[in-house]
Amino acid sequence: MSRMDDILENVAIDAWADGFTRAPGQANAPHESDAELGELAQAPEQYLAITIDTVAEEIAAGLYRDPFTMGWVTVMATLSDLAAVGADPLGVVVSTSVPQESDAAFIDGVRRGMEEACRSVGTFILGGDVNATPEVSLTGCAIGTVPRSAARTRLGIRPGDAVFLTGPAGQGNALGLVRLAGLPDDLFPEERYRPSARLAEGRALRGHATASMDTSDGVLTTLDQLARLNGRGFVVGCDWPVLLARGALGVCERTGTPPWMMLAGPHGEFELAFIVPASAVEPFLNEAPGIGLNPIRLGTVTDGEGITLVVPPGRRVDIDMASVRNLLVTAGSDLARYLDELGKLGRSWGLE
Amino acid sequence: MSRMDDILENVAIDAWADGFTRAPGQANAPHESDAELGELAQAPEQYLAITIDTVAEEIAAGLYRDPFTMGWVTVMATLSDLAAVGADPLGVVVSTSVPQESDAAFIDGVRRGMEEACRSVGTFILGGDVNATPEVSLTGCAIGTVPRSAARTRLGIRPGDAVFLTGPAGQGNALGLVRLAGLPDDLFPEERYRPSARLAEGRALRGHATASMDTSDGVLTTLDQLARLNGRGFVVGCDWPVLLARGALGVCERTGTPPWMMLAGPHGEFELAFIVPASAVEPFLNEAPGIGLNPIRLGTVTDGEGITLVVPPGRRVDIDMASVRNLLVTAGSDLARYLDELGKLGRSWGLE
Repeated sequence: MSRMDDILENVAIDAWADGFTRAPGQANAPHESDAELGELAQAPEQYLAITIDTVAEEIAAGLYRDPFTMGWVTVMATLSDLAAVGADPLGVVVSTSVPQESDAAFIDGVRRGMEEACRSVGTFILGGDVNATPEVSLTGCAIGTVPRSAARTRLGIRPGDAVFLTGPAGQGNALGLVRLAGLPDDLFPEERYRPSARLAEGRALRGHATASMDTSDGVLTTLDQLARLNGRGFVVGCDWPVLLARGALGVCERTGTPPWMMLAGPHGEFELAFIVPASAVEPFLNEAPGIGLNPIRLGTVTDGEGITLVVPPGRRVDIDMASVRNLLVTAGSDLARYLDELGKLGRSWGLE
Repeated sequence: MSRMDDILENVAIDAWADGFTRAPGQANAPHESDAELGELAQAPEQYLAITIDTVAEEIAAGLYRDPFTMGWVTVMATLSDLAAVGADPLGVVVSTSVPQESDAAFIDGVRRGMEEACRSVGTFILGGDVNATPEVSLTGCAIGTVPRSAARTRLGIRPGDAVFLTGPAGQGNALGLVRLAGLPDDLFPEERYRPSARLAEGRALRGHATASMDTSDGVLTTLDQLARLNGRGFVVGCDWPVLLARGALGVCERTGTPPWMMLAGPHGEFELAFIVPASAVEPFLNEAPGIGLNPIRLGTVTDGEGITLVVPPGRRVDIDMASVRNLLVTAGSDLARYLDELGKLGRSWGLE
């Protein structure tokens, strides 16, 4: 059994993907890239990048109450996949499924969220499909182009390489915790959750980063997937005030939540985790401010397996991300149980 | 009030589309094209064509029971929009939302439907997204390219132009009738509903057809939308054995259903309705067999408004398609009532 198959979500994806014939000229296989990269005969130096994402589970779980958030995240989630491969967006098409009885304010909220998300990163909704369904389900599909020589996948990670984040993370799990634990809204107001697709950063990383993946499923799931795909491991230095966004750190401090949970939960944001080869780290860090980057050093690639956290003041903790990730499936729709079990796992590893 | 706004579905689409900033370089405005047509800087003689479609309402309404049909239609529906604009497909991405407890046979059925639909027209599933939701919802997004000089929209229709179909129609409404009226399955077995996107025909029509639109919402809705968009009307010659697919005609004969309902209902197939200028009809019909086309003459564009059917043996019947199309919304989820009201409308116009 490969290590990819230890993750129930990967198995669920393969149940679909294994039956599809690969397209000639597609640069990536399943799992290997945030966006699909295909050749374009009429523009032989480019890849067309395309990706699709549905926002429905988050809405059903009650994470988003404001329709603006629903629309915003739908657009940003798909654009974030373009950012990961280093593509320039051409635009987004959306398919919206909302109950027939939805009022105008609800539709207007979702629509404004989509429009403002596009505006904030300089792209456009090109068109879409409108459906009436009992549950809200919003799908975005972003397309873009990236020079073939600059396209990044999730592959090509070697021991000693450095792993960075484009910015502090944890906002997604902060909101998730507040919702799932039924904590007061003002601990992390929903309107603070406006994660942006790192398109400019994704472009700036062309020629610098050898691989990247967004943190939409949480930072540690991102690293775990990169580790499994490449047969490597990571050591992550847990300098919480540097790694965690202020709002996420604040939730931890005010609720006594262990900070690792802000990276371990499944509800992320749209930072990029990216890899820089060991020999290129110093020149990259020198150039970074000039190309609009403020990278956060997350850790180092190892030739081992799995993820080791180095928590203050320097204790090494091996975490079992398969147990963490599979909780999402085994806990089913019982999200309170998910949270409880996640806390237990952490305590079993001494993460308090 | 414009005539487009007489249709509740158009109003519902505008509630979304009116709030979105138009992309520079997009060739079509909302409603004007089956697929969005955008400029591609790296290939200046091409448009990128992109389109998204969700199959959920049909499944909730019980039209499809076989997961293979669900997957097949998801892929064909989005590819059909590429066919309408005359594009060559690059591939399809899919987002699948199925209940967590779905068994392997269900997933395998949907997946095979998607894969076989792609194979049958020579394209590929490039990738996608997998979600767990209470209701089944399947979204396909197809991308392709079309030479700018050959791209078709729904616009540019003049009085005297001829309107054709790429093939006989009515299969979608035949299945719809069997399901909604609770008739025996063998009147129109679901496995007979395997409508194909007319990609080859869409390409062959480059340089011949000035406008086109697929029949996914039924032939008369297609014509009505073309009429409203262009401020024109249509006269349609109702030679039922020629216009209707054999299975659809058979359902009419065996159930006493008026044949017009096979064109008027909202569940179509993926033929193309296309326009040929009056002066080009004869050369087009001469060339058609050589380029793989077997066009069916549907009627003629008028400078009036609305749609007139000419039913055997030659009686002219003006039909009010706004009433027909809006029934879908006003009847809500009461599909038996929809069917009943549609029959009543037809009888009020003498269509039995």
